[in-house]
Amino acid sequence: MKKIIKNGTIVTAADTYKADILIENEKIALIGQDLTDPSAEVVDAEGNYIFPGGIDPHTHLEMPFGGTVSKDDFETGTIAAAHGGTTTVIDFCLTDKGKPLQNSIDQWHAKSKDKSVIDYSFHLMIGEMNDSVLEQLPSVIEDEGITSFKVFMAYKNVFQADDGTLFRTLEQAKKLGALVMVHAENGDVIEHLVNKALEAGQTDPIYHALTRPPEVEGEATGRAAELTGLADSQLYVVHVTCEEAVEAIAKARKKGYNVTGETCPQYLVLDQSYLEKPNFEGAKYVWSPPLREKHHQEVLWKALKTGDLQTLGSDQCSFDFKGQKDLGKGDFTKIPNGGPIIEDRVSILFSEGVKKGRISLNEFVDITSTKIAKTFGLFPQKGTISVGADADIVIFDPSVERTISVETSHMAADYNPFEGMKVTGQPVSVLSRGDFVIKNKEFVGKLGKGNYLKRSRYGELTSSKEELYQK
Amino acid sequence: MKKIIKNGTIVTAADTYKADILIENEKIALIGQDLTDPSAEVVDAEGNYIFPGGIDPHTHLEMPFGGTVSKDDFETGTIAAAHGGTTTVIDFCLTDKGKPLQNSIDQWHAKSKDKSVIDYSFHLMIGEMNDSVLEQLPSVIEDEGITSFKVFMAYKNVFQADDGTLFRTLEQAKKLGALVMVHAENGDVIEHLVNKALEAGQTDPIYHALTRPPEVEGEATGRAAELTGLADSQLYVVHVTCEEAVEAIAKARKKGYNVTGETCPQYLVLDQSYLEKPNFEGAKYVWSPPLREKHHQEVLWKALKTGDLQTLGSDQCSFDFKGQKDLGKGDFTKIPNGGPIIEDRVSILFSEGVKKGRISLNEFVDITSTKIAKTFGLFPQKGTISVGADADIVIFDPSVERTISVETSHMAADYNPFEGMKVTGQPVSVLSRGDFVIKNKEFVGKLGKGNYLKRSRYGELTSSKEELYQK
Amino acid sequence: MKKIIKNGTIVTAADTYKADILIENEKIALIGQDLTDPSAEVVDAEGNYIFPGGIDPHTHLEMPFGGTVSKDDFETGTIAAAHGGTTTVIDFCLTDKGKPLQNSIDQWHAKSKDKSVIDYSFHLMIGEMNDSVLEQLPSVIEDEGITSFKVFMAYKNVFQADDGTLFRTLEQAKKLGALVMVHAENGDVIEHLVNKALEAGQTDPIYHALTRPPEVEGEATGRAAELTGLADSQLYVVHVTCEEAVEAIAKARKKGYNVTGETCPQYLVLDQSYLEKPNFEGAKYVWSPPLREKHHQEVLWKALKTGDLQTLGSDQCSFDFKGQKDLGKGDFTKIPNGGPIIEDRVSILFSEGVKKGRISLNEFVDITSTKIAKTFGLFPQKGTISVGADADIVIFDPSVERTISVETSHMAADYNPFEGMKVTGQPVSVLSRGDFVIKNKEFVGKLGKGNYLKRSRYGELTSSKEELYQK
Amino acid sequence: MKKIIKNGTIVTAADTYKADILIENEKIALIGQDLTDPSAEVVDAEGNYIFPGGIDPHTHLEMPFGGTVSKDDFETGTIAAAHGGTTTVIDFCLTDKGKPLQNSIDQWHAKSKDKSVIDYSFHLMIGEMNDSVLEQLPSVIEDEGITSFKVFMAYKNVFQADDGTLFRTLEQAKKLGALVMVHAENGDVIEHLVNKALEAGQTDPIYHALTRPPEVEGEATGRAAELTGLADSQLYVVHVTCEEAVEAIAKARKKGYNVTGETCPQYLVLDQSYLEKPNFEGAKYVWSPPLREKHHQEVLWKALKTGDLQTLGSDQCSFDFKGQKDLGKGDFTKIPNGGPIIEDRVSILFSEGVKKGRISLNEFVDITSTKIAKTFGLFPQKGTISVGADADIVIFDPSVERTISVETSHMAADYNPFEGMKVTGQPVSVLSRGDFVIKNKEFVGKLGKGNYLKRSRYGELTSSKEELYQK
Repeated sequence: MKKIIKNGTIVTAADTYKADILIENEKIALIGQDLTDPSAEVVDAEGNYIFPGGIDPHTHLEMPFGGTVSKDDFETGTIAAAHGGTTTVIDFCLTDKGKPLQNSIDQWHAKSKDKSVIDYSFHLMIGEMNDSVLEQLPSVIEDEGITSFKVFMAYKNVFQADDGTLFRTLEQAKKLGALVMVHAENGDVIEHLVNKALEAGQTDPIYHALTRPPEVEGEATGRAAELTGLADSQLYVVHVTCEEAVEAIAKARKKGYNVTGETCPQYLVLDQSYLEKPNFEGAKYVWSPPLREKHHQEVLWKALKTGDLQTLGSDQCSFDFKGQKDLGKGDFTKIPNGGPIIEDRVSILFSEGVKKGRISLNEFVDITSTKIAKTFGLFPQKGTISVGADADIVIFDPSVERTISVETSHMAADYNPFEGMKVTGQPVSVLSRGDFVIKNKEFVGKLGKGNYLKRSRYGELTSSKEELYQK
Repeated sequence: MKKIIKNGTIVTAADTYKADILIENEKIALIGQDLTDPSAEVVDAEGNYIFPGGIDPHTHLEMPFGGTVSKDDFETGTIAAAHGGTTTVIDFCLTDKGKPLQNSIDQWHAKSKDKSVIDYSFHLMIGEMNDSVLEQLPSVIEDEGITSFKVFMAYKNVFQADDGTLFRTLEQAKKLGALVMVHAENGDVIEHLVNKALEAGQTDPIYHALTRPPEVEGEATGRAAELTGLADSQLYVVHVTCEEAVEAIAKARKKGYNVTGETCPQYLVLDQSYLEKPNFEGAKYVWSPPLREKHHQEVLWKALKTGDLQTLGSDQCSFDFKGQKDLGKGDFTKIPNGGPIIEDRVSILFSEGVKKGRISLNEFVDITSTKIAKTFGLFPQKGTISVGADADIVIFDPSVERTISVETSHMAADYNPFEGMKVTGQPVSVLSRGDFVIKNKEFVGKLGKGNYLKRSRYGELTSSKEELYQK
Repeated sequence: MKKIIKNGTIVTAADTYKADILIENEKIALIGQDLTDPSAEVVDAEGNYIFPGGIDPHTHLEMPFGGTVSKDDFETGTIAAAHGGTTTVIDFCLTDKGKPLQNSIDQWHAKSKDKSVIDYSFHLMIGEMNDSVLEQLPSVIEDEGITSFKVFMAYKNVFQADDGTLFRTLEQAKKLGALVMVHAENGDVIEHLVNKALEAGQTDPIYHALTRPPEVEGEATGRAAELTGLADSQLYVVHVTCEEAVEAIAKARKKGYNVTGETCPQYLVLDQSYLEKPNFEGAKYVWSPPLREKHHQEVLWKALKTGDLQTLGSDQCSFDFKGQKDLGKGDFTKIPNGGPIIEDRVSILFSEGVKKGRISLNEFVDITSTKIAKTFGLFPQKGTISVGADADIVIFDPSVERTISVETSHMAADYNPFEGMKVTGQPVSVLSRGDFVIKNKEFVGKLGKGNYLKRSRYGELTSSKEELYQK
Repeated sequence: MKKIIKNGTIVTAADTYKADILIENEKIALIGQDLTDPSAEVVDAEGNYIFPGGIDPHTHLEMPFGGTVSKDDFETGTIAAAHGGTTTVIDFCLTDKGKPLQNSIDQWHAKSKDKSVIDYSFHLMIGEMNDSVLEQLPSVIEDEGITSFKVFMAYKNVFQADDGTLFRTLEQAKKLGALVMVHAENGDVIEHLVNKALEAGQTDPIYHALTRPPEVEGEATGRAAELTGLADSQLYVVHVTCEEAVEAIAKARKKGYNVTGETCPQYLVLDQSYLEKPNFEGAKYVWSPPLREKHHQEVLWKALKTGDLQTLGSDQCSFDFKGQKDLGKGDFTKIPNGGPIIEDRVSILFSEGVKKGRISLNEFVDITSTKIAKTFGLFPQKGTISVGADADIVIFDPSVERTISVETSHMAADYNPFEGMKVTGQPVSVLSRGDFVIKNKEFVGKLGKGNYLKRSRYGELTSSKEELYQK
């Protein structure tokens, strides 16, 4: 079934122009003015932008954490994502030290397969690097198309890997064509600060932030960047929150190291004072790394503008306030880390970024979609509006003014951290491979229709034997 | 007359994909796979890239300099440009202090109108800022569509303006929506160094370089950048050559100043040692600023990659070796500054940049075309391949290997500074507003067919009343 | 007549120890514990510090400025200096373009000779550099012992020199063994900002600050530093006030350039808000460069600590509020620039620096005396307490608490900019070449007893043919 | 027995002047010109400099390492030190995890007590931080006067501590008044690189350097500095070798962190190419961190000049080439790390630093003695020539030209890494607390005459209840 999207203004990472799009066989088939095709369904996008579908490079759906499980699964999570203009998610597949990596990957397939309403893929956590893991990596890349590995420098005695593992992962990534992602905080120092706080009876949510100061993030970011340069490898720093970390990335890039960074909406618009909300409400704002003092926000915006940061992830990992977040009453270390963000990621960047003149429309598309596709081996199948690409398309009304609220959101958690925030702009309709998932703001998709995406090797040619692009 | 360009790989600043292009009424009308139209001429681009036509933001065609006139005029210059894959040039209109600006603009119109084979536009030199100049500026912008002003910090007692003029020009540019361009070298210090050299009998071409060291460029660049920040205005530094200047720009950008920079092919691949060639051949390599020691080249490449520099100009200003360059025998200050570059600008960046892995294909397009169109108010009419844009198109064979030589070049001067340099890739055919200017490497265009382009104000919406893009 | 100073704690730029000092023939003859000499007058310094006399490298005594003359001359100025613990001043000898330098020097000798109660020397202003000035410089150095030249980058059409003059002065300084000092502000830009302000009717004192923003100082400082590096010469930036300028100096030093900087007490403890005092009182706080926003103060303190700034001058140039400062009512440009500072320079650095833990006692001595003597060719005759040095000594009570006030100060002007400021510590007695100038806080010196000091060449051996020290 | 040192030129960290010194009761009693005392032995120092005795802050005498013991013990080591102009050493007391700290301290007392010919003190290694160690620290400081703690970030599974221990040591140091010293290299990464090299059959000495690249030192230095800032504590980085580490220290200092650094003579004058000497001679040049490529040397010199590095240690840890260094034949990891340096530390800095114009005479004294005394709580008893200080004095002939050689050196090892190097200047006679240890280049001291020095707390007042100085 063909479709023609008419009269919209198409926006890519480089271009902005009015034209119609013909969709056929899940792909963008034709772009031109005044397209007609009697056999096609016509979708009028007059007054709207046409964006490539957003890609969320950082989600934790149905993830076990501290004895509970994140609330949004691949069903509610991807439906909410679609409402928010996101048509691809890359979820973190956690692994257990000593167990086969494939076991974990199979678990992740099991929980996503029949649920996801949009296309999806996985990153793989590397908890330790040894001969056994080394042997398993080629098939992870070859057979599963998983070409990005996550290493944690924090969560001591849980996820945390030592510098030897980080460095060896960087070496392997270079050799095999993968990208290393780090959660960059110094877990050793955090553990000590946390113990000291608890001993001093400091158990409220705000101590979550105070025991993970910006210095521990800046230090770890600089360390990971330096090891990347030494290994001549490639690094992607997830959820960058503060000036210290931005400076470490900028310094590495200036030296010619291949280091990139992601931030998240919560760090751009919320700040540390939220953790001091009364009645334990501060727990709603517990992320790791934590929200920072307000002055860091402008540093993050400027870094998105100048290119020292490249992408926006959600770090979606939602928990109910009642029954989950409140596990940490009387002990902030027991508050599950994370929040429901997947739905509002794109809108917040549009409203706070484009509408407030901090970034251009094209940069907005690059940051929420194109650059992510290129970074993670999905381009040009995903991440752009060009002939031959998957018809993952967002029809976006830039003039709507609305208020974010848990009442109107589609995520499963019982609160929204952006509650009451006014934003301009909203996805009206969203297509995944040519089919509506959201139509006139209503979900019309199908569980399990999302495909699992095998991704190209880092920097590899993606669509053919020809040299179509270089990194 | 319609055309279909078939089977090429379209490359924009963001995208790389295979598709056909239908051209109609000078514009890109349709992009799709397997396009057919019996009424259209079919151009087969199999195995080739389709780039948006290059834009050269920095030319001096038929320019008077030191008692002579640059050799290439709007005829030979634009024909050579087209051969090289450039479909728009922006030439510098020089002014005389105390005379009406319109006089100079009229002269520039007179010498370009019936000659240019591709579209063109003008920048305007500001030599002094006073009440009279202030009064003339609005009509320059409004009536002539000239929205970029050049200020010289060098050429003492000739073009050089003082800091007061620079600063006031920055203020006016902000107010009126224009962009300030600077030639950043400290003319006072250069004058003294030159006098000292001449007194010491140092008259060979190499002393041109030695009397304009990188420090005087770095200093002036930093000064212009700081004044831009103070005026909260916008600056474009032409022909950046050295680490000192790149650092000054990077520092300004980090502070959030709106400062951008251009480099030129000669600074990327030639170095100061060329000025020491025997038999006065060093004179062929006299530019201001001069060629630098080799280690600066890698700094310039890295800056193009990270975005501290944004664009590539040619600074085309050619003189014959015999009869022009040799005016400076026995006195390097009498060597006309400049060289024939306009034809090789695009090819050199492709070959040395893309083929050697220093920049991506998309970055190549951005640097030679898209970013220039956006910076100078020509986008999206120029600078991209999107529906509705002017059909300024380069069909580029990326596999051709050839040697640059004056024998095969189309510029008027009697030498080529890149003589003997091997490059990969060459424009096969070039279209300007839908018509072939170059077809199968032969010039098939028409004198005077190029249009004068009025440009949009800096940062302004360009194509309609709608908010199509923001800077 | 011999003297023994007993029981004090001697402090030098390196040492702190208890010992007695024997003074004989104007010099320090002996240092030891429990010194006795029946023929010597004994001065008990129990509980006090013994500092080398302070050196003020930056004074304008009886200086013509804007149609008036600075209030303190070599009589009141040096008496006040002595009260404040300063035993040497270096005053700026202003010159007139086109007139013999010696004329100006003779004027300066005439006004200081019979008045100064402490030793003194001169810097020389260079307003332009040409063949005539070049010829005069050797005798200025040889015969007058003036080995530091001041170049103004501000005060357009008055003192301001162009970059050619600055650069040539740097070259000559290197060749002849002198030090170049700059007043670093961009005079061209200031002139324009001032004109704009006046046209807009902005005539109050605060506009003095707002028309000379930190950017114009930072720019000019960077420019002077870069030219110094290019000339491989030596530079001393007077009255550094802001982060922008400190960064320019630090950057130059990191590159290995010989660039040093001075700040003044007013910039360390007063801020821009003082210029907004009602009833035209803001005029009392008009200096060039102007007072800055408060956050710059911590940058200056840190720079004194880390060594990016080296010295403290007063920029003494006092005017009465009534009859002088009020010349600028209705036009801030007519307010004479400067204030009475010479007396409080040392005390403020002790109280705010040492007592508040920002710098050490030894650093305090270095900054107010030793480093200045070394920089300006007076060491080891001046600037330290060592055997053989001039007995210029300050007996300083570190425990006195007092309030600075015009009532108790000895400067001639009718106000004190630090009025009401509480400080800890005060000179009790002060000796110049072994004789009391101040004894128990009373002036006991003699007009004209101060000697004119010829200074050594920059970096030269000062006391003998032997290699006693290197720069 | 009194002594008068006549006619020398006294040099301190601030002063240079000719005077005589009277020594009485182990102390400097009097400084003056033409001193006479019939009861005193007169020492003529005409033509010589009088320096305060050097202090070596970094020695490993008779230290067990990798199954062998460093060759120089407190007898040969301190005799050689004295020959070289050093009158105090601070040796590293190694500890064993899990055993009482006092055990180790007692061992160190045992091996030094009856041997040392000059005064000495100890630093203490902290291998882990736990409740037991916490309890022991106060008595280490109070009873033993050990106020500096060394933490190793390298030597995985041997000395290496984790970041938690480093951070807690920084916290304790702040609380108790001690200084933390770090060996800054990333041990985890080194371990992996070493294993890789060995697996690849890369066993020659040069692989020692190649498996510990500058990046691992730069990273660890930055990490330690950042944790110091977070703990608001104080840090001293031992043996800094490379630009990466210098930049990390400079960045920390600019932020106001209390971070200082030491380098060693070998890093200033030798380079990585020495490790490639044939016949396994490269093993003579194995230090950790390793010698670097030559361009790092100029960075270290510049840092000593600008104050980003403050001190010079020897890292004395000598091994015979035959019988010790050759343990590593066929496996570079078995080469004992270290070399004989203690004797040449002062001379090399004088010859390469002062004589070559890189630093001043006063800076030389500061770097080799004064600043070390101030940093480690020995000032003003040690580290200067002032009345009341210990008469630790070096009479130094600045004109002697000589060649360093194992033949003429007094260290126990069978080679000298500076063999054949020409230096200018040599200690003629050396006094420790008023007695000759070296007289006319002959050892005349006595075993066991050196005293163990308890040191003041970090930043504490050292000589009396009065506020004599502040840090």
